[in-house]
Amino acid sequence: MRPSSSPSDRAGSALFAGVLSRSPVAEAVSDAAWLRALLDVEAALAVANAAAGLIPATAATAIAAACRDASVFDPRALGEQAAAAGNPVLALVGALEVAVGEEGGAYVHRGATSQDIIDTAAMLVTKRALDLIVDDVEGVADEAAALAERHLRTPMAGRTLMQQAVATTFGRKAAGWTAGADACTDRLAAVRDGLPLQLGGAVGTLAAFEAQGSAVAARMAEDLQLTNPVLPWHTIRAPIADIAGALGGLAGLLGKIAGDVILMAQTEVAEVSEQAPGRGGSSTMPHKHNPVAAISARASAMRAPGLVSTLLQCCMAQEHERAAGAWHAEWETLPDLVRCTGSAASWLRESLRSLQVDEQRMRANLQLSGPSAGAEAVAGHLSVRLGRSRAHQLVAQASAAITTAEFRARLLSHADVRGHLTAEYLDELLDPAASISDAVSQALAVTAAHHARRAGS
Amino acid sequence: MRPSSSPSDRAGSALFAGVLSRSPVAEAVSDAAWLRALLDVEAALAVANAAAGLIPATAATAIAAACRDASVFDPRALGEQAAAAGNPVLALVGALEVAVGEEGGAYVHRGATSQDIIDTAAMLVTKRALDLIVDDVEGVADEAAALAERHLRTPMAGRTLMQQAVATTFGRKAAGWTAGADACTDRLAAVRDGLPLQLGGAVGTLAAFEAQGSAVAARMAEDLQLTNPVLPWHTIRAPIADIAGALGGLAGLLGKIAGDVILMAQTEVAEVSEQAPGRGGSSTMPHKHNPVAAISARASAMRAPGLVSTLLQCCMAQEHERAAGAWHAEWETLPDLVRCTGSAASWLRESLRSLQVDEQRMRANLQLSGPSAGAEAVAGHLSVRLGRSRAHQLVAQASAAITTAEFRARLLSHADVRGHLTAEYLDELLDPAASISDAVSQALAVTAAHHARRAGS
Amino acid sequence: MRPSSSPSDRAGSALFAGVLSRSPVAEAVSDAAWLRALLDVEAALAVANAAAGLIPATAATAIAAACRDASVFDPRALGEQAAAAGNPVLALVGALEVAVGEEGGAYVHRGATSQDIIDTAAMLVTKRALDLIVDDVEGVADEAAALAERHLRTPMAGRTLMQQAVATTFGRKAAGWTAGADACTDRLAAVRDGLPLQLGGAVGTLAAFEAQGSAVAARMAEDLQLTNPVLPWHTIRAPIADIAGALGGLAGLLGKIAGDVILMAQTEVAEVSEQAPGRGGSSTMPHKHNPVAAISARASAMRAPGLVSTLLQCCMAQEHERAAGAWHAEWETLPDLVRCTGSAASWLRESLRSLQVDEQRMRANLQLSGPSAGAEAVAGHLSVRLGRSRAHQLVAQASAAITTAEFRARLLSHADVRGHLTAEYLDELLDPAASISDAVSQALAVTAAHHARRAGS
Amino acid sequence: MRPSSSPSDRAGSALFAGVLSRSPVAEAVSDAAWLRALLDVEAALAVANAAAGLIPATAATAIAAACRDASVFDPRALGEQAAAAGNPVLALVGALEVAVGEEGGAYVHRGATSQDIIDTAAMLVTKRALDLIVDDVEGVADEAAALAERHLRTPMAGRTLMQQAVATTFGRKAAGWTAGADACTDRLAAVRDGLPLQLGGAVGTLAAFEAQGSAVAARMAEDLQLTNPVLPWHTIRAPIADIAGALGGLAGLLGKIAGDVILMAQTEVAEVSEQAPGRGGSSTMPHKHNPVAAISARASAMRAPGLVSTLLQCCMAQEHERAAGAWHAEWETLPDLVRCTGSAASWLRESLRSLQVDEQRMRANLQLSGPSAGAEAVAGHLSVRLGRSRAHQLVAQASAAITTAEFRARLLSHADVRGHLTAEYLDELLDPAASISDAVSQALAVTAAHHARRAGS
Repeated sequence: MRPSSSPSDRAGSALFAGVLSRSPVAEAVSDAAWLRALLDVEAALAVANAAAGLIPATAATAIAAACRDASVFDPRALGEQAAAAGNPVLALVGALEVAVGEEGGAYVHRGATSQDIIDTAAMLVTKRALDLIVDDVEGVADEAAALAERHLRTPMAGRTLMQQAVATTFGRKAAGWTAGADACTDRLAAVRDGLPLQLGGAVGTLAAFEAQGSAVAARMAEDLQLTNPVLPWHTIRAPIADIAGALGGLAGLLGKIAGDVILMAQTEVAEVSEQAPGRGGSSTMPHKHNPVAAISARASAMRAPGLVSTLLQCCMAQEHERAAGAWHAEWETLPDLVRCTGSAASWLRESLRSLQVDEQRMRANLQLSGPSAGAEAVAGHLSVRLGRSRAHQLVAQASAAITTAEFRARLLSHADVRGHLTAEYLDELLDPAASISDAVSQALAVTAAHHARRAGS
Repeated sequence: MRPSSSPSDRAGSALFAGVLSRSPVAEAVSDAAWLRALLDVEAALAVANAAAGLIPATAATAIAAACRDASVFDPRALGEQAAAAGNPVLALVGALEVAVGEEGGAYVHRGATSQDIIDTAAMLVTKRALDLIVDDVEGVADEAAALAERHLRTPMAGRTLMQQAVATTFGRKAAGWTAGADACTDRLAAVRDGLPLQLGGAVGTLAAFEAQGSAVAARMAEDLQLTNPVLPWHTIRAPIADIAGALGGLAGLLGKIAGDVILMAQTEVAEVSEQAPGRGGSSTMPHKHNPVAAISARASAMRAPGLVSTLLQCCMAQEHERAAGAWHAEWETLPDLVRCTGSAASWLRESLRSLQVDEQRMRANLQLSGPSAGAEAVAGHLSVRLGRSRAHQLVAQASAAITTAEFRARLLSHADVRGHLTAEYLDELLDPAASISDAVSQALAVTAAHHARRAGS
Repeated sequence: MRPSSSPSDRAGSALFAGVLSRSPVAEAVSDAAWLRALLDVEAALAVANAAAGLIPATAATAIAAACRDASVFDPRALGEQAAAAGNPVLALVGALEVAVGEEGGAYVHRGATSQDIIDTAAMLVTKRALDLIVDDVEGVADEAAALAERHLRTPMAGRTLMQQAVATTFGRKAAGWTAGADACTDRLAAVRDGLPLQLGGAVGTLAAFEAQGSAVAARMAEDLQLTNPVLPWHTIRAPIADIAGALGGLAGLLGKIAGDVILMAQTEVAEVSEQAPGRGGSSTMPHKHNPVAAISARASAMRAPGLVSTLLQCCMAQEHERAAGAWHAEWETLPDLVRCTGSAASWLRESLRSLQVDEQRMRANLQLSGPSAGAEAVAGHLSVRLGRSRAHQLVAQASAAITTAEFRARLLSHADVRGHLTAEYLDELLDPAASISDAVSQALAVTAAHHARRAGS
Repeated sequence: MRPSSSPSDRAGSALFAGVLSRSPVAEAVSDAAWLRALLDVEAALAVANAAAGLIPATAATAIAAACRDASVFDPRALGEQAAAAGNPVLALVGALEVAVGEEGGAYVHRGATSQDIIDTAAMLVTKRALDLIVDDVEGVADEAAALAERHLRTPMAGRTLMQQAVATTFGRKAAGWTAGADACTDRLAAVRDGLPLQLGGAVGTLAAFEAQGSAVAARMAEDLQLTNPVLPWHTIRAPIADIAGALGGLAGLLGKIAGDVILMAQTEVAEVSEQAPGRGGSSTMPHKHNPVAAISARASAMRAPGLVSTLLQCCMAQEHERAAGAWHAEWETLPDLVRCTGSAASWLRESLRSLQVDEQRMRANLQLSGPSAGAEAVAGHLSVRLGRSRAHQLVAQASAAITTAEFRARLLSHADVRGHLTAEYLDELLDPAASISDAVSQALAVTAAHHARRAGS
């Protein structure tokens, strides 16, 4: 067989790839990458079969050699033939037999079923892609940790329900991102390192391996650097659920951080902007500067949960020993999920790397809510002295004032307040610096932990 | 610009296309199709701008001419440039200006914003793809109606909760599929015929059209055969929700019918099989025959709801006058949804077309549940005479018998029964034919309605 | 049977109802409402059976009478008994027989199957709830139209990708909300008015109705004010998909509008606030004022798409003549979807009703992006005279200026610009009022259409 | 405050609870359980505040005492008041202050924000419910392991794509279920044991705790038996994603097993049935016996993925320091997810416990596909001797025969076959027992591992 077309080396739409398929992950889940993985599995199967004495060593050598050159195989032709068999493996095995030649051809695919090859290839493709994603998530954590350290003591408005609440620091905010990314890295790496071989033969009983099935599986797992599961998992799809869960959680985190960046970059907030030459222009508004990286990260991440939903909702309920549809529905869904989450991670890393932070604007914005930063502290102090409702009433009345000075004056005009609060202590409570000392410690703890793990890894 | 690669003419993975991307729908939502649609929109914009006196007629002619030859543009290069602007239109406009040349180039894209071009192109792409899908859904209805007529009076087990209940006919079952498909065609066609132009300029106010915006929009809508909405819908995404809802409902129906076929094709049921030379083999079990078309239809349909979910969950909540991510997340999701639903429709049509029906087996299976077909009728008859609980008790005891004859004998052994039921009437109640007369009428009504609509359409 | 507990008259958690279950919709989908609907269906069945001569008229009268008083039945006890039969209807029928008494009891439920009763009751429950929701969506449109008229010419920043772009008006923005809500009302009303009766008997063949099935169905549909479908739809769940699609689209719109309100209410934007005495406080920050209604609307709406997804993903694929699980999974999902969408509509109506609009702040914010409002117009004007790239370059350079005056001065310092643009025309282009004339017309058209439909309805 | 109604002690619809809310999990996530948890958190906060010297010890004692009696508080009234504040905590704090009395009332809720209380209560509610679910999943594994051992060597048809493929054993099938359930238990227990305290104060900086925040958090975590996270996770919702992922995966497994049971229980397959007195009847077909437990398990499990989707899709993207809607949308979604997954686990345990296995029918069904069990083995043997295509051709031709004897005869009629296969070895290959020896070992390994973990736990 001669390829009528070169295998597509990027998955997804080329036209929208600039936004939705950033990062080499799109290559790692392409048809070319799948073909590579399918051939790797057939090669490993042959080698393991030979080691178990099930096929001649020369056949294994010939098969492994033929599997090395993926360019001989044409994914498009294989894909078309898949319509007859219901999957592309039968066609691949046929083409591989031809490539191996008369002698060893008959030993290709011995003992395995199509699902063994596709599922194991799916694990290889995912594992290789997860390496790239983990790298980008670590990059996100690195950038976030750097921001946390650079702006350790920069006060800014903490915002709840999209309203300014009390002060936090940008360092604390970025520390939250760091800790979130580090936790995702752990979960992703654990999933990646646990991805299992699938080998069971026709119905998962290893029947065709003449009692050597366990040995063959062990060898293949070792060669392919996958784990060797207690049982084949052909219709117990826990590995797919694990991947889906980990990537779904990651996409959620990436979307959250990207969303924060976009909100802070709003014209009226203007606390951050992305500074990347040539990026962020508008076709009609030359004056405009869009946080394209954060937006693209968010867009990419938004595609994930629907794909997770397909994997959990349809693809877990696999009937008996091979599903009639639910298995096949994974084939494009899983790579798409990997690709869009990978794109989001890569974009977010780039967004944080290019982030310009306007500390002055952060401070200025914090003034907008007047004494809010300290009002909570005052209310807390007075609550235990005057009762919560009286305290809140006094503070609420005083809060109607626009400036901190007015707030201070109004408060001290009440005898009730003066009886429990000296002007000096009031000033202390109203000092933004006072309220952020824990935020600074929190950020320091997180960045220290981040550096420790990076040093250790 | 010279294309470094030809635009991909099929969307999705080539390797899995045989199963998951059947039908020309995969071409209709490819990068090449998108490029064609984007250029159609730019051409229509130029023509409408000229008609409104906003650009010279010669410029419009030059632009329309340049838009005709899509091969000049390279989706991959445009896609890569999209990373800078956040969408591929700026790059396309640049390339189009070059293609148009000095004179008319400056009039390209006049007054529009990127989203106008992409959204309107999305409507064109979808409309063209829906034509193909409607054709296949009509084909599904045709095949189902033919089955209904061919097997109008073929009794088979009605099955509830996966247990045989009472008799129905295969004609009635297929009539249900027909009616379902006809209803989907109506909904799809209504959605297709209502797909709207999007033209609003930067923020939806048509501000750059010098008060000619309405005229430009009307002309574009007419030329592109889209509807002209009251208002631009840039962030009020009802058209997307309508498409998603209609395709989600269709996918549900296709999955249901495919599921019924798969269940009836089970080895132990064996009431239907797909007869298509060369399709349905297994790589390891030469004796096996899989209903590949129904399985592929089901697999394709299963991908739909997760994509619908993305469109409804993320993509509706578009902020202000253009969303920061939710819009972009539609770009691959919508074509994927169209593609997988289209693949399901095409596969299911093929499945029904190739369906071999074993009427004898249907009758034989119906005997498995013994007198069940008539037991409900007997219970109904006795209930109003002996009270429900006594009647059910008598029938349940008699039902423990395996054959209808035993059931009949046991029942008649009770004086209670004999007092209210003659042996003759009992035989009548136990005649499967008796219980299916309404099923036959139902099927006739549906197929008649189907033929009437097809004759009229 | 004596109720051991009164039926719950509100669905969902009481503790979180204040936020997530606003509006009488929570009552309309409660256990009490379901019980009412189930009894209505049994009553209508009896009446129709009598009209068709299948049961005595006296029995129908007795059954209808017994169905009138729902307080006799205990949903909790029925629910517990449902564990044995797999649904609560068998238990309800038993209790109803007791309530009717010896005479007519045996005629209860004649010819129907449990699914007929539950599905038809589901349509009744949904129809009644949709009346409430339509009312609230019309209320949303009314409030939005009033805002559109009140602020018809109020300029504000149009925002794309969360950045200020060019000017629009608040009237235009609210007109978009109005048009969106009016379109949803149309779709919802169409779905509501098409909700069908389900009557098919054990497997959908009407076999137990002695050839009177069509007549019984027609009469029931008329009495219950449901449509009478061509075929029973027990496992062709198009009505469920239609409801899901319509509510999913509505939830998307409500979430979008609520999101806009929340974004405009941000401390740093401050263009709107909700003014409702006693609402919006914080437990720890007495100075804070949260747009609770918009937030609650958004939260309620966010629950919808996942529920839609369940209905489309799991619940469409119903096997054969009754699904083994997919049907049952609808029972809580559908009411939850109705409830959360209804809550969102009610909250959003309240949010818009209480919306304080700060026109001055809108104008002030518009100044933040300097000449942006007019820069697009200038770029458009110059593009067709100097070529797009030169024009954009000049405008971009000038846009670096902070104020409109500086922008104007910089632009006019270029001979290129002066050659194609007089200072007078430049001022005209930079006048925000110029760019919003179409926005005003758009809003007028929408509000006029809204009033016309409300006058007509 | 006097309760106007007793708190609902079961979540979800009572009417459908028999099917969709089995198991005490419905109680564990009820309003009453939430109220209990909210009070537990306020009590722990007071105790920890006192330990840190932030409030008087007497106040803590009084608060803890008041928190003990949940019956004083009325969830419905609290829920209604939640409409004003946007959450029920402010109202609860008010009621608690009253309950505590003048003296200690002012120290209630000191330093915390509403989200701290609700999030930590959500973790408590979930943890308590997960205990119940883990118990049921262990029960599922126990039942499955018992089935695996009881039917260790029972041959049955392995089925791929819903067609009989080659033989497996029922023991092997049940071992797959066991291994799947054991893996889910591990994941669930890990998630449960890692559920964290949330304590951050207004914006997550612990600012109101006067530098004692870390100490207060540590003490609370210890008292409530939750983990103490590095940082508050108010808007980094990894714990929610973890719960969602684990329960989504579990629901998938439960649905898969339930689906297998339902398929095996089909009238035409009849390999298993549920034997539970009084369960499984039909309202109209007294002869029918439905696997109600498996169906209810499947229905309950089907509700999960849509809820997971809401948690991942909407609820992860939480803005800044408290989300404007995404947080609130979790409140009902999380308990519903816990409840439906718990119901599925409980039902499946019951289904497996009541499973009658018809070994004879399994053997009989295996005969239906003739020599299929051995045909694969024969094809494998001949492939390496005659080449795959010739071997498959010969086997396929022979497979057209209906009985194994015919198959054997046809095969041996070919000289090609006889040259490579003696009649004795052919008989060996065709012996079903031969093909299942690995299946037996697999099942033994899994059940041994299961017993080891149960002995150790």
